[in-house]
This record gives sequence, structure tokens and C-alpha cells, in this order.
Amino acid sequence: MTDDDVRLAHALADAAGTAIRGYFRGALGIEHKEDASPVTLADCAAEAAMRAVLDTERPADGIVGEEYGVTRGGAARRWVLDPIDGTRAFAIGRPIFGTLIALVEEATPVLGVIDQPILRERWVGAAGRPTTFNDALARVRPCAALAEARFGSTAPAHFDEAEHAAYLRVAGQARDALWGGDCYNYGAVASGWLDGVIETNLKLHDFAALVPVVEGAGGILRDWSGRPLDAESDGRVIALGDASLLDAVLERLGG
Amino acid sequence: MTDDDVRLAHALADAAGTAIRGYFRGALGIEHKEDASPVTLADCAAEAAMRAVLDTERPADGIVGEEYGVTRGGAARRWVLDPIDGTRAFAIGRPIFGTLIALVEEATPVLGVIDQPILRERWVGAAGRPTTFNDALARVRPCAALAEARFGSTAPAHFDEAEHAAYLRVAGQARDALWGGDCYNYGAVASGWLDGVIETNLKLHDFAALVPVVEGAGGILRDWSGRPLDAESDGRVIALGDASLLDAVLERLGG
Repeated sequence: MTDDDVRLAHALADAAGTAIRGYFRGALGIEHKEDASPVTLADCAAEAAMRAVLDTERPADGIVGEEYGVTRGGAARRWVLDPIDGTRAFAIGRPIFGTLIALVEEATPVLGVIDQPILRERWVGAAGRPTTFNDALARVRPCAALAEARFGSTAPAHFDEAEHAAYLRVAGQARDALWGGDCYNYGAVASGWLDGVIETNLKLHDFAALVPVVEGAGGILRDWSGRPLDAESDGRVIALGDASLLDAVLERLGG
Repeated sequence: MTDDDVRLAHALADAAGTAIRGYFRGALGIEHKEDASPVTLADCAAEAAMRAVLDTERPADGIVGEEYGVTRGGAARRWVLDPIDGTRAFAIGRPIFGTLIALVEEATPVLGVIDQPILRERWVGAAGRPTTFNDALARVRPCAALAEARFGSTAPAHFDEAEHAAYLRVAGQARDALWGGDCYNYGAVASGWLDGVIETNLKLHDFAALVPVVEGAGGILRDWSGRPLDAESDGRVIALGDASLLDAVLERLGG
């Protein structure tokens, strides 16, 4: 991962944002995929715009895109793209969805972008570097007590019954817990506005970008067993601004 | 309700917004009220700023404020103020909370503002006039079939068990239903991005401003019995962009 990869990640976010802004609060052209998740004209246009940039600038790298699948999946360097994380929020005009862009080397996410193209807010994380929010340093806040922590999670429907109960064991002892937010919640953790996010059923394109963003801001991303995330993770995710909360969270998730 | 009241409503929103922007993503100074709802320095500063304007410009009118209570409660004209609707979203840096301002004449809301001070988005509704969104016309969209409708509601915890089950009877047959959003959902209905909102436990300061905004855009606000809202309503609210959905919604809410 090089400085030029960071520059390219910005260029990819710019390209996606230009595509998305043209559709926000306009024609959606929504269809539903086999898993019932919605896909809009904006999702497709934004991923196509990013792929066009990659085809020119990184023709040997792999691409894993939410909408158009896998290209050169065996490559050691893969760009993982989620053109709109939070398509359902996008579809009702809420400007807190995001474009997720990650560079994964072997199985490790080494570069991540969370971009909100309507608000023009962008978090960028890269291994070994401090995370930025609109080019200024982003930093988690300390929160060592569960009773003081604020949590976010996108929707109860993303959990199965046991997972939902597990989440409520954490949320019920926290200071506050809000639904909604999609990837914006993870940016909020990186910026020290929110203390944690707990979710399940995330795919690689949902979580790869989050790792460098949250960890470069001083936080941690773990699976529900406490292991760091990589390309093989099962999609059950804990993000914490203050790592000292991890044991309390794991204990309650475990039942 | 006069043109000058509309001008004044804008001035009140401007004053609140200036106060709120200074606190967003900064020091919160959160305390919890007797009903466990949070109040921040920003709530208090924004309501104080609006009260200062009203004291100068409408010294005879009543004021009903979320934070500072009732002043001249017997007045025929009352300004109803919720400085931050969505304090919990505000507290985690999500810019989709709002300032709510209403003028209630006798028991009828005749003027309403939903203002998002960070995004600088403002809906204004006034009886007998078309609703505006950032000074352009706002209009609901048609949606005559429940299966095509998208609903919003802020949080499952706002419902009691029976109300939650009732809401899920509607949401389960709709095209989509999202949590989160607070007053922003009602603006989304007025602008034709969202088809309906169903909530409970709203107080007068939560719902008075919504009535002119949604109805001036072509939608309806009703209680769960189908009656129009006024100052005596019980806080169970249905907002619909397309009134032809009302029977289908009421039937499912009724069990």
C-alpha cells in the first residue's frame, strides 16, 4: 500500500460521489437482489465509475464489488467496493449512507474509505497512518465503562433472534443505543462521537474499509469471538473506540 | 397567522440553528430529565435563543417549550418549540435531528417549521399555503398500495408491546420500513422521499409543527383512530404522503 494507493482511493470516492449525487432524491430505479437487498441505479453507476478508474490505473489488481462481483479474484491486491452502504437510507433521502472503498492485501484490509457524498464527509484510514476526517485527524474518545457508552447498530432485522438478544444484553447496560446509521456509525466511532457498533451479517464489502478507518483512529474492529477482522471473517462485527470495553462486550454477547 | 408570523418562524429557526451549530460534535453537557430523555446544552441554548426573539417580537403570545415549559399558557396564540427533536441522534453526530417550531391558534397548528441546522435544510408549512423545502415547493408522492410504501419510525423502544406489534403489522406488509430519523422522517414524507411515519408517545412539541408541513405538501397527519391532530391529541401519530393508504394502515394498527 503506497501513497499513490491513498490518492487513488480518494479518486475512487470522488468518482462514486459524482455518480451518486445525480440520483439522490431522484429516480431510484430500485430492484431487489436474490437476498432481497435493494440495488439502485446509483449503486450500479457508482460501482461502474470506480471500476473504470481501476481498469485504467490498476489493471492488474483484483476487484470485489457489491454489484458487479469479482474480477481477478486471485490477485494479491484487491479493491473491495460497496458503492452505497445504506441503500435503504439512500432510497428515503437520508444523507447518512456511504461509499465504502478498501484495499485488501492478501487477506488484510490496509486502506479504507468511508465517504458520504451528499455531506461531502470522508474518513480515510491506512495501515500505519492516522485516520483522517475531511483531511483533519480523526480520533476515538476514551470510554472505559459500558454504562457510559453509546452504541449504534443499523437494524434489528439484521440479527437473528439469538444475536438480537445478545445485542440487547450489551445495549441494555449501555448509556444509549440507537438504530440506523449503516457505515456512518463506524465513522462516528473513528471521530469520537459514538463509542461502539455491533452488527452481524456484514459481507467483506461492508466491513473491509472499516478496519483501517477505525483502527487508524485508535479504535478496534473485532469479530464476536474477539479476533481481528480479515477477509475470512464471518461478518459478525464489534467496533469500539476504546478497546478496554472489549471484554465487557464479549462477555455479554457470549450469553 | 400572518405573513409576518411566517417571517418570524424563519427567524426563530435561524436563531436556534446558530445556537445548535456551536455545539454539534462538541461539548454536549448531557443531562437526563425525569422521563430519562436527554437534554443537552444545545437544547437549552437553542430554546433560550428562540424565547429571546419571541419576547421581543410577540410579547403577548404564549410559549410551550420542551426545555423551559409553558409561558402564558392561556394565550390564544402559542408558539410550540422543540429546540432539538432527535437529541440522541444529535449526541452521536448524526445530522438528521431537527428544530421544530409551530404556531398553534386555539388548539390548531397553523404554522410549522422542521429545520435541520447542520445541513441547512428547512421545511415550512402554513395553513392554506403550499409547503416549502429550502424555499422550493415540497410535495408528497402518490403511493396507493401498502406493498409499495416505505415507512419510517424512530425507535422500537418508543412503542409499548402492543403498539410495536401493531406497527409491525403495517411494516411487515410494506415495501420497506426503517428505524431512526426523528422529525426528519416527516420532512421526507413532505418531500415525497418516504411514504409514511407511524409513532407513539409524541408530545405537542414533537407533533405540532409536523401538521402544517405534511398537510401543506398534500399529505395527512392523523392519530391512530384516524382523527386529525390538534393540541389535545394523545401523541399516537400516522403521517401519510398518500391519504388513500389510511384505511389499510388503520385496519392493521387496530389489530
